[in-house]
Amino acid sequence: MPIEYVKETYQMQLRPLLMRAVLYFGDKEGIYSPDHQSEEFRCTWHEEYERICRLANALEKLGIEQGDKVATFAWNTHRHGELSYTVPMMGAVFHPTNIRYSREHLVYAINHSKDKIMFVDEDLVPLLEEISEELKTVELYVVLTPAEKLLKTKLSPLYSYEELLREASTTYDFPDDLPENSLAVLCYTGGTTGRPKGIGWSPRSIVLRCLGCSGADQEDFHEDDTVMPVVNLFHVNSHNFQWSTAMSGGKLVWPGPHPSPDDQLRLIEKEKVNYFQGASTVVMFAMQEWEKGKYNLSSLKKVFSGATAPNKALMEMMDKRGIKCHWTYGMVEGRVNFTTVTSHRKHMDGWSREKYLERMTYQGLPIPGVEVRVVNVDTGKDVAWDGKEIGEVITKGLWPAEEYYNDAEATSGVFRDGWLHTGDLAIVEEDGYLHILDRLKDIIKSGGEWISSVDLENAIMENSAIRQAAVFGVPHPKWDERPVATVTLKEEYKGKLSEEDILKPLRSRFPGWWIPDYVIFMDELPMTGTMKVMKRALRDMWAEGKLKISGS
Amino acid sequence: MPIEYVKETYQMQLRPLLMRAVLYFGDKEGIYSPDHQSEEFRCTWHEEYERICRLANALEKLGIEQGDKVATFAWNTHRHGELSYTVPMMGAVFHPTNIRYSREHLVYAINHSKDKIMFVDEDLVPLLEEISEELKTVELYVVLTPAEKLLKTKLSPLYSYEELLREASTTYDFPDDLPENSLAVLCYTGGTTGRPKGIGWSPRSIVLRCLGCSGADQEDFHEDDTVMPVVNLFHVNSHNFQWSTAMSGGKLVWPGPHPSPDDQLRLIEKEKVNYFQGASTVVMFAMQEWEKGKYNLSSLKKVFSGATAPNKALMEMMDKRGIKCHWTYGMVEGRVNFTTVTSHRKHMDGWSREKYLERMTYQGLPIPGVEVRVVNVDTGKDVAWDGKEIGEVITKGLWPAEEYYNDAEATSGVFRDGWLHTGDLAIVEEDGYLHILDRLKDIIKSGGEWISSVDLENAIMENSAIRQAAVFGVPHPKWDERPVATVTLKEEYKGKLSEEDILKPLRSRFPGWWIPDYVIFMDELPMTGTMKVMKRALRDMWAEGKLKISGS
Repeated sequence: MPIEYVKETYQMQLRPLLMRAVLYFGDKEGIYSPDHQSEEFRCTWHEEYERICRLANALEKLGIEQGDKVATFAWNTHRHGELSYTVPMMGAVFHPTNIRYSREHLVYAINHSKDKIMFVDEDLVPLLEEISEELKTVELYVVLTPAEKLLKTKLSPLYSYEELLREASTTYDFPDDLPENSLAVLCYTGGTTGRPKGIGWSPRSIVLRCLGCSGADQEDFHEDDTVMPVVNLFHVNSHNFQWSTAMSGGKLVWPGPHPSPDDQLRLIEKEKVNYFQGASTVVMFAMQEWEKGKYNLSSLKKVFSGATAPNKALMEMMDKRGIKCHWTYGMVEGRVNFTTVTSHRKHMDGWSREKYLERMTYQGLPIPGVEVRVVNVDTGKDVAWDGKEIGEVITKGLWPAEEYYNDAEATSGVFRDGWLHTGDLAIVEEDGYLHILDRLKDIIKSGGEWISSVDLENAIMENSAIRQAAVFGVPHPKWDERPVATVTLKEEYKGKLSEEDILKPLRSRFPGWWIPDYVIFMDELPMTGTMKVMKRALRDMWAEGKLKISGS
Repeated sequence: MPIEYVKETYQMQLRPLLMRAVLYFGDKEGIYSPDHQSEEFRCTWHEEYERICRLANALEKLGIEQGDKVATFAWNTHRHGELSYTVPMMGAVFHPTNIRYSREHLVYAINHSKDKIMFVDEDLVPLLEEISEELKTVELYVVLTPAEKLLKTKLSPLYSYEELLREASTTYDFPDDLPENSLAVLCYTGGTTGRPKGIGWSPRSIVLRCLGCSGADQEDFHEDDTVMPVVNLFHVNSHNFQWSTAMSGGKLVWPGPHPSPDDQLRLIEKEKVNYFQGASTVVMFAMQEWEKGKYNLSSLKKVFSGATAPNKALMEMMDKRGIKCHWTYGMVEGRVNFTTVTSHRKHMDGWSREKYLERMTYQGLPIPGVEVRVVNVDTGKDVAWDGKEIGEVITKGLWPAEEYYNDAEATSGVFRDGWLHTGDLAIVEEDGYLHILDRLKDIIKSGGEWISSVDLENAIMENSAIRQAAVFGVPHPKWDERPVATVTLKEEYKGKLSEEDILKPLRSRFPGWWIPDYVIFMDELPMTGTMKVMKRALRDMWAEGKLKISGS
């Protein structure tokens, strides 16, 4: 018989995700933000919804219609959160721009996206002023400030967020007929290589990801959670945590402007945060701060992280504090996650300590709804699941993207034959656990063999004196490339470690030709806007002779 | 700007849900079934997948193509489970027919669905033989038996399931381009009123429901779960538990043919089931059996149930054993669930015992992805959330159906203005908790006021001597209707209770005019195929003078 179809006209929408919090947890404190030092913000979900309605009315008054782009240039505050809810629920497009972009990339992304309005944090105004003359489509600016008097700036015309809200009505009729594939959110990639590339998010992709990741073995959301999302909204829409938290009926603690590890821990203690989310570097710095014993963080039970794999030292640190870790692997193009490793799962009960910790540094199993393969880069065939054969990770599924936004050239390189080619090299363990070795561009090829910088970094990080480590390849006349390690030390260890202190533990674990030729002690490593070490910058510094080889 | 669209061609599919178990939990025991007394079945997910491939090849050989209907007439066994996976993954339509239907409804459903092949359990062959001559489209029969010799039957042509599998290849290339809205599963409603009505399920609706219900506050699936689904596949596809379990990487224990409460408990003990699923009556009978102390069920930690609300007595029973309950409200037309009450949630910690138990008998909060309203039956406006104003529950969302299968007339009565009209009457508590009072057709209207049969039944059930209770309305010359209660007693209490023993506890809790005029002691209550009390049958028996009023 011919295939029959089932009538399914109901569209996946964002509004019901938020409304679950508003309708069924409306009297509960839903939002907290320290925001600027002088101001503290907290409200119920019901009150938050009134502000969201005010914002929608204000946006309408400013001329925003369905399909218009509304950009932001801001930290994770409650006001930024409100924009992230309101704009896509109106059918407009929320475009959080990356405040860590270079001037060139910033101008490119804003002009490419054709943003109509720009919302900007007070302390970030000077950065925008520098480029405002080059922005071709931005018609007006709104400062995200509670201040009565607007600051002096050449950004014009200029409005105040709170003033706009104050004048607006507390009710708004959000559409419930937006197509599920319509453009709702636009995020640009980190832009570490070449120009930024946009990834469009639809209500469909956000709903599917929030539902698909909600289970206990994935992100484990509960209605009693108090969640602090430190991953910036301008980085992968903060993993949609604002939507997942609302949908589950939890509480959101926005960390506010440029939160230091100290700020983060103070907030966890003060608001009894039980669910902390941040890039792995952020989590590591926070845990190192915690070790100093200044805070009582007994409320903290769950950590969600990603960007780079955790190392055993970090896992040990969290393990001994009884924190359940949800470590995810993904990328902007994945909208966001492909796989998760979750600690403390029952099937791990019988594992040796060594195997358990080792596995925690891997990337784990695909999330239900995502298909992941590792394929030989030459033949395109699946690699053997033997923990040895290396291939590229490719993926498709319910939420990975299928294209870059208005960028056919970039699209054709990455999205091919229905699969997203991640550019990550990995092996697969016998039981299917994914183990990322390197970015295709970061892996070190020495004497015709591959050396995993990630494996070396994780091993180096087991030394508790180390704050951060990065291993990268430098050109070599005989071996093509050789590994070089850069490390930063914790304050109390500075000047006290030798190159051999770093290398000795590696000698028993890796083949001789894996051992880095040099160890370079640095004060800071160059970081990307998404808190990954910028290895390209390290390679450039090496080429320019800017990296000193001797002593710490 | 005009609305822009995001490219999203990836279709929601069933195959990846199963493949997550096969690929990443392949060596783990995935399936157990006691099946027929003489045979015990257990295998890994990998082995199960080989059987699924064999079945697909066998079906193809029997002439099954995309869109063809494959019917079953069977209990929850591993073979039936295999059909439930294989048929929709091939793009054919899985139609589990209700073995408890009347002859008339059975013939109607099979002819209406246009089933091509019929798979039948050995012990159910006689039932099918009775109607086989009236089946217009069924071309052949397959007996779900391990037996070497086929039994003698007039069903013809006749094949053996295991023989078909034995001859088939262990590999099969399942399509991965099935449209997400294509018809995959067909279930007919209970048919307690009028002719059966079909509800079609697409891959989309199954995927969305499995993802949407997987969270801790909903169905709480873990990869370490051992799940026993007692709700029959021919009733709402067993809540898709076979898909949710596979997707999560758990283990399935099929209960086998006509499982008694004793059978169920034996299986829980033997296979260390931690997650038990069954209609509320089934759960109640199982718990009553457990009270006898014959089994050690320490593995049991979670119960998922629905069909009718639990009563406080049942909740107490599970509560004292530390079992987390997930009580759901839904219907076939909802594919399946709208709301959940989950016990032992943190926000209940401060509640009084009384409030906690009371809430456990309600229907709880909408599941993320489902919108629920309660509207005045006359005005169509939302009722006040005051725990008093009664209205009809209407719903729409990511998985509730929007039509009956090929039945425009029935569709127009139930699916209107984009909402599914459930025919259930409810109130809403101040915090949004849904509390179903009755089916629209079961509620008792006495002297112009409504009496909730469900509230009376729950109160009666608090007496531990009672096995089951049903209250229904009978015609009355002055008050239009008056309530009558029917009860069955536990074995040891038979003949020992009076009408006043039943009614006395009600007098202090309900207005005088709510108290049933009569209590009728019965040996059994008439049950529907989905284990609900058949109130229409009780009303008919009353009208025909078949219900005796005196003594127990």
